[in-house]
Amino acid sequence: MNTTDAVLARIDAGLPDALARWMEWLRIPSVSAQPAHAADCRRAAAYAAAQLADIGFAVSVRDTAGLPCVLGHHPGPGGDAPHLLYYGHYDVQPAEPFELWTHPPFEPALVDGPHGRRVVARGAVDDKGQAAMWLTALRAWHAETGTLPCRVTALIEGEEEINSINLKPFIAAHRDELRADIAVISDTNMWDIDTPAISASLRGIVYIQVELKAASRDLHSGMFGGSALNPINALVAALGQLKDSSGRVQLAGFYDGVRDIPAGRASQWVSLGFDEARFLGDIGLTTPSGEAGRTALERLWARPTCDINGIWGGYQGPGAKTVIAAEAGAKVSFRLVPGQDPAKIVEAFRQFMLDRVPPDARLSFQLFGCGAGIEIPTDNRFVQAAAEALAAEYGKPAALIGCGGSIPVVETLRHELGLDTLLMGFGLDDDQVHSPNEKFELRCFHKGTRSHARLLGALGAGKRG
Amino acid sequence: MNTTDAVLARIDAGLPDALARWMEWLRIPSVSAQPAHAADCRRAAAYAAAQLADIGFAVSVRDTAGLPCVLGHHPGPGGDAPHLLYYGHYDVQPAEPFELWTHPPFEPALVDGPHGRRVVARGAVDDKGQAAMWLTALRAWHAETGTLPCRVTALIEGEEEINSINLKPFIAAHRDELRADIAVISDTNMWDIDTPAISASLRGIVYIQVELKAASRDLHSGMFGGSALNPINALVAALGQLKDSSGRVQLAGFYDGVRDIPAGRASQWVSLGFDEARFLGDIGLTTPSGEAGRTALERLWARPTCDINGIWGGYQGPGAKTVIAAEAGAKVSFRLVPGQDPAKIVEAFRQFMLDRVPPDARLSFQLFGCGAGIEIPTDNRFVQAAAEALAAEYGKPAALIGCGGSIPVVETLRHELGLDTLLMGFGLDDDQVHSPNEKFELRCFHKGTRSHARLLGALGAGKRG
Repeated sequence: MNTTDAVLARIDAGLPDALARWMEWLRIPSVSAQPAHAADCRRAAAYAAAQLADIGFAVSVRDTAGLPCVLGHHPGPGGDAPHLLYYGHYDVQPAEPFELWTHPPFEPALVDGPHGRRVVARGAVDDKGQAAMWLTALRAWHAETGTLPCRVTALIEGEEEINSINLKPFIAAHRDELRADIAVISDTNMWDIDTPAISASLRGIVYIQVELKAASRDLHSGMFGGSALNPINALVAALGQLKDSSGRVQLAGFYDGVRDIPAGRASQWVSLGFDEARFLGDIGLTTPSGEAGRTALERLWARPTCDINGIWGGYQGPGAKTVIAAEAGAKVSFRLVPGQDPAKIVEAFRQFMLDRVPPDARLSFQLFGCGAGIEIPTDNRFVQAAAEALAAEYGKPAALIGCGGSIPVVETLRHELGLDTLLMGFGLDDDQVHSPNEKFELRCFHKGTRSHARLLGALGAGKRG
Repeated sequence: MNTTDAVLARIDAGLPDALARWMEWLRIPSVSAQPAHAADCRRAAAYAAAQLADIGFAVSVRDTAGLPCVLGHHPGPGGDAPHLLYYGHYDVQPAEPFELWTHPPFEPALVDGPHGRRVVARGAVDDKGQAAMWLTALRAWHAETGTLPCRVTALIEGEEEINSINLKPFIAAHRDELRADIAVISDTNMWDIDTPAISASLRGIVYIQVELKAASRDLHSGMFGGSALNPINALVAALGQLKDSSGRVQLAGFYDGVRDIPAGRASQWVSLGFDEARFLGDIGLTTPSGEAGRTALERLWARPTCDINGIWGGYQGPGAKTVIAAEAGAKVSFRLVPGQDPAKIVEAFRQFMLDRVPPDARLSFQLFGCGAGIEIPTDNRFVQAAAEALAAEYGKPAALIGCGGSIPVVETLRHELGLDTLLMGFGLDDDQVHSPNEKFELRCFHKGTRSHARLLGALGAGKRG
């Protein structure tokens, strides 16, 4: 048995312990968006730091202007072993609406499903479950060999779900500590449960809250209706123009820089045989939304979007209240693709709204995220090694896919450190990420952990050999 | 001193007691829209019944399919004295948002203002305060004379703020008990604090809740954005088309039956010298909203409107959540003028929405109110007597005004009983009806009570004399 095989056997035997550690982390409601959970976030950071210390890392919890980052270093075997920067995040999305959960979101439950057992909890996959995989792989290597096959830096942040608002200055301030040969992130999906995947592009995001204030107080719609500005009507009239009937976003210059995907990638995506009818059927829909005239995977991976993520105003209770509200608001996000300039889109949205509201409508904007879409280079030895590790684990080649979501750190690492990223994730499309009943398949967790262990072995052996 | 003068003196002397009774009623949070307050509504009904019993009424609290009605009878002096039907409502609007109240909404506070003392509480004016005026006037007549100058039936319902949803069948089932010569309602406004008013028209209302459901669960906007229908985008895109840029409502046939006001009324309204700049300035606005090309009072009293009274969907908490919600909803109301058919407008709205949402958008509608706008006849002896009573109390003639709000019972009384209504109200435009810090000026309450007492005296004396 070579060392990697011994490590894999150790992972198999230690699965119950790994599950217990993962679930303990999930019990901490580290919701970064909600200030009431700030202390929980710090507990989740401390828990991650303790895990790294267990594996021989020199680790500490570092303050930022917001929630802290966990930063640890392991020297590895020395020599010319490559230096990997693992990135993960200990924060999770809000769990609301609680009443739709079959189990309390912060009391992780092991539940039977079509693929065997799964863990149901907020953060089960995003990202505690995915980070727990590489933590478990590192732990197994450390237990088996007393060291790691590569030099490893681990960075686990606490604000990914709020668009990593303080991560950029943190990385800039710790450039020397964060240098590495490649960043490794597990926060993306497989193609399906049998087919591993490496992501080759990420969409960026601009996330803006807009509020519209009108009268100085709520008004009676009988006494004032027809004379007083209604902020909900005004907000809705403007937001309702964000897309035309073919699904194209109407901000000025929105598509500037957006390129059609290369023919080679287009044909590779077609060869994946994506079944959009089934994808939509799983969520109760029949008809694709979004831009007309594009393939399904193009719309998901290579075209920008506009979604209103939240809206509020006036009376939301039962029955009727004949009120004209004093204010209304919405959260609007744009997924961006490589070539679009996020700062220009922020300004275009601001101008779009200002141009469309009547006099007396006082608009205010809050920016909660502003990151570009990016291409991930795949022509390097790290991606090659990952593809081999995945093929060995799954018995079939990894798909090279796009990712519709955004992982702000990827752009930051490239910009601040010139560092490329390997995106090797093990989530599934039906994991209900950001939704009630988020789950992670134990099978994905187990084989994902084994894939990470294989990758570490291959990179270490490759350098040493 | 004639009897009416003695009654007025009694009202002056008894003002502190009247205030105490009124405030006791205000302490009961009888919010009809909120099922959690059902028991409070019944307490408020019992309180009103006890007041009527005090004044010699044969009174009982009658069940309906919803909240009960208080119904009482006083025979008056007998003979050919006229028979008045006083109508009021003991229910109030929801008090949310609580944090904007300077005093707890159900702990009435006496506060100093520019016109002297005022009562601040939910229901201070609408309608407990206005109903307390005629209850106080009746009490004073009863105390002074041992009877009332007219035969009086009193009907105090508990669902006015939820569009009197069970009142019509109640009135139909109690036709014999509700017959009278005229209905008298205080639920409207004065022209200003020095100028009394009688309302000659009421707008009707159609109030509809619309909900739009899309996917079977909340979705991650990165994974699904561009493919999955976003119900907030879809709802907003449809609702955003409700008015064109000149403020005209776009439902098919919406303006069918809407007539321009007669020249006589138009010139009378102009003579009132309405200061729209000041009206809007009081609520922090500068520019009229609503239909272009109409005078301010026309827009408020004689033109139909469309207001979105509430909207909700997705994430409304702090920060960012990149969710595509499973559903969104809104409450939409239309104020109607005489000539418009409410049932047609309900159907036109339904069709308007159905025509504008994409496939997979499942719409549902709930109707919370459907009443026509009406003209109030003013050429009868009751309105004449009221005008004289008001002129005597205020030393200037009453203005004949429109009312932008809706009082569903007026149409029901006419339709079911052939009964006309006298609308003599004492609210002010700045009473913050339906808003936080609703208030009623003690001066309005006092002089309104005296006006009611004068009217009773005049009608009783007129018949007897």
